[in-house]
Amino acid sequence: MFKQVQAAKERLKGYAHVTPVMTSQTLNRLVNAEVFFKCENFQRIGAFKFRGAFNSICQLSEAEKARGVITYSSGNHAQAVALVGQMMKIQTTIVMPDNAPAIKRAATKDYGARIVEYDPEKASRKDIADELETENGFTMIPPYDHKQVIAGQGTATLEMLEEIGSLDMLLVPCGGGGLLSGSAIAAKGMSPDCRVMGIEPELADDATQSFHTKRLHRVKNPPTIADGTRTPSLGKLTFPLVLEYVDDMKTVSENAIMQAVRFLFYRMKLVVEPSGALGLAALLSQAVVPEGRVGVILSGGNIDADTMGMILNS
Amino acid sequence: MFKQVQAAKERLKGYAHVTPVMTSQTLNRLVNAEVFFKCENFQRIGAFKFRGAFNSICQLSEAEKARGVITYSSGNHAQAVALVGQMMKIQTTIVMPDNAPAIKRAATKDYGARIVEYDPEKASRKDIADELETENGFTMIPPYDHKQVIAGQGTATLEMLEEIGSLDMLLVPCGGGGLLSGSAIAAKGMSPDCRVMGIEPELADDATQSFHTKRLHRVKNPPTIADGTRTPSLGKLTFPLVLEYVDDMKTVSENAIMQAVRFLFYRMKLVVEPSGALGLAALLSQAVVPEGRVGVILSGGNIDADTMGMILNS
Repeated sequence: MFKQVQAAKERLKGYAHVTPVMTSQTLNRLVNAEVFFKCENFQRIGAFKFRGAFNSICQLSEAEKARGVITYSSGNHAQAVALVGQMMKIQTTIVMPDNAPAIKRAATKDYGARIVEYDPEKASRKDIADELETENGFTMIPPYDHKQVIAGQGTATLEMLEEIGSLDMLLVPCGGGGLLSGSAIAAKGMSPDCRVMGIEPELADDATQSFHTKRLHRVKNPPTIADGTRTPSLGKLTFPLVLEYVDDMKTVSENAIMQAVRFLFYRMKLVVEPSGALGLAALLSQAVVPEGRVGVILSGGNIDADTMGMILNS
Repeated sequence: MFKQVQAAKERLKGYAHVTPVMTSQTLNRLVNAEVFFKCENFQRIGAFKFRGAFNSICQLSEAEKARGVITYSSGNHAQAVALVGQMMKIQTTIVMPDNAPAIKRAATKDYGARIVEYDPEKASRKDIADELETENGFTMIPPYDHKQVIAGQGTATLEMLEEIGSLDMLLVPCGGGGLLSGSAIAAKGMSPDCRVMGIEPELADDATQSFHTKRLHRVKNPPTIADGTRTPSLGKLTFPLVLEYVDDMKTVSENAIMQAVRFLFYRMKLVVEPSGALGLAALLSQAVVPEGRVGVILSGGNIDADTMGMILNS
């Protein structure tokens, strides 16, 4: 799989941003380690999801491209697929719950995607997407359980390690496990002694449970502020990859997540969404005791005014 | 003066951050130009002010350092002087209005500064600072009207031009004119054809008026959201420097300033304070019609929860 991450990096050249790595002396003193933040909030569409979407869609055949692609997501993956579709002149269809935030629907629509809404109380987004896929000959680009999506997500870590050299530890947010497994594959390929830790909200700890019991656990609509981690479970591909490549999983409280978003805002002047701040939350709450050189993936920065206002005032 | 900016850059090496230059393809399409943002919100203490404070204080004699330094400011300059004092083990005294935001007083105190409060209705901060200076033998480090402060502030532009090459235009926020005159000196020294524009809020347009009439205008406590530009007027040194080195001055509305802060938050994931967003406000409001390669100094990122919340919700 590491070779696929390396190949993805070549494909992304000139299309994805090579995002900066930032540091904070205040944080380093606070946690007594050297912390490097990979700023995927500066990635296209404001999150790492562009990498996986681009890497998978660009490899489709001309016939597949002509028929179009489909996915189900109300968040960053939807925008990523829509933007890649716009760049490559491929028709995109996004299945989205009818209660998705207006701002996310608008952003996805702005990239020229067709949006199919459904009532999340009555239907499953995956069933609707599967049906449309079969009916129309679309190619499904799932949000995480897809080899080329996983390989694409791994390129953020690959870039970071090529820029700053080896790490002793890498902290990665975990939702469906696409970013986590891609990052772990890249880290172990580049820096085999690097300890890779997946970080989840306590309220959505399905992957942590699955990791420790080696049986797949599920959660349903967990009420965490970290909306990128509200996925029901790890996937068929990501679960075994997480078991193989990840060293440990830790959880953090909602308060720790909000504290991390505030630290990034006030001390580092970075806009980071709650899911993106999980790694820092683990450091600040001492869920992870850092050692030596520690990489942290800030996975995205798409946060609305109400959520940021609530976090800054709490 | 350009040589003094170059010398300041050498002095700052290893102490100030070399802040990144960022771009936005969305903005470039929107304004039909190539815009480069110098991100001084990532500077130490969250604003360019560290540069001038360090460059002036580090040149004091050992006897002056032993007696300590003093300044008057409720904002970024206070924190900058306090931090430099802490780094160099120099006693710092900051004269601050008793209604200054608690968060700014706390940050300044955290750096070990002694804070002298006064009632801004009854006394002038400069008078109080002058008195303390005489009584205690402190050295005054004024917020802008000081050659070495001005030279220090110019290093941000010098760094940017050394990194990205020449510019056709440079947009710089203007309060007391320290950043503006330093930036203009650096720009003309490096890239003589670069058109340097100072940007002020309409509500605090004293420097624009002074520039156009060539007579010093003043404002008193202008009610602009851009708190870094609430200075009463250009200084004895900065006024002639602005007349000599700056090509034009433009003003922007409060709405344009807020729109720029929102753009930086949502589209670029950057936390920038209202004063720091003046250059982008001029582009978005078409107060300045950009040409070719345009530099914009994002001067700082120190903004509190209430102000950011208000701006995001407006």
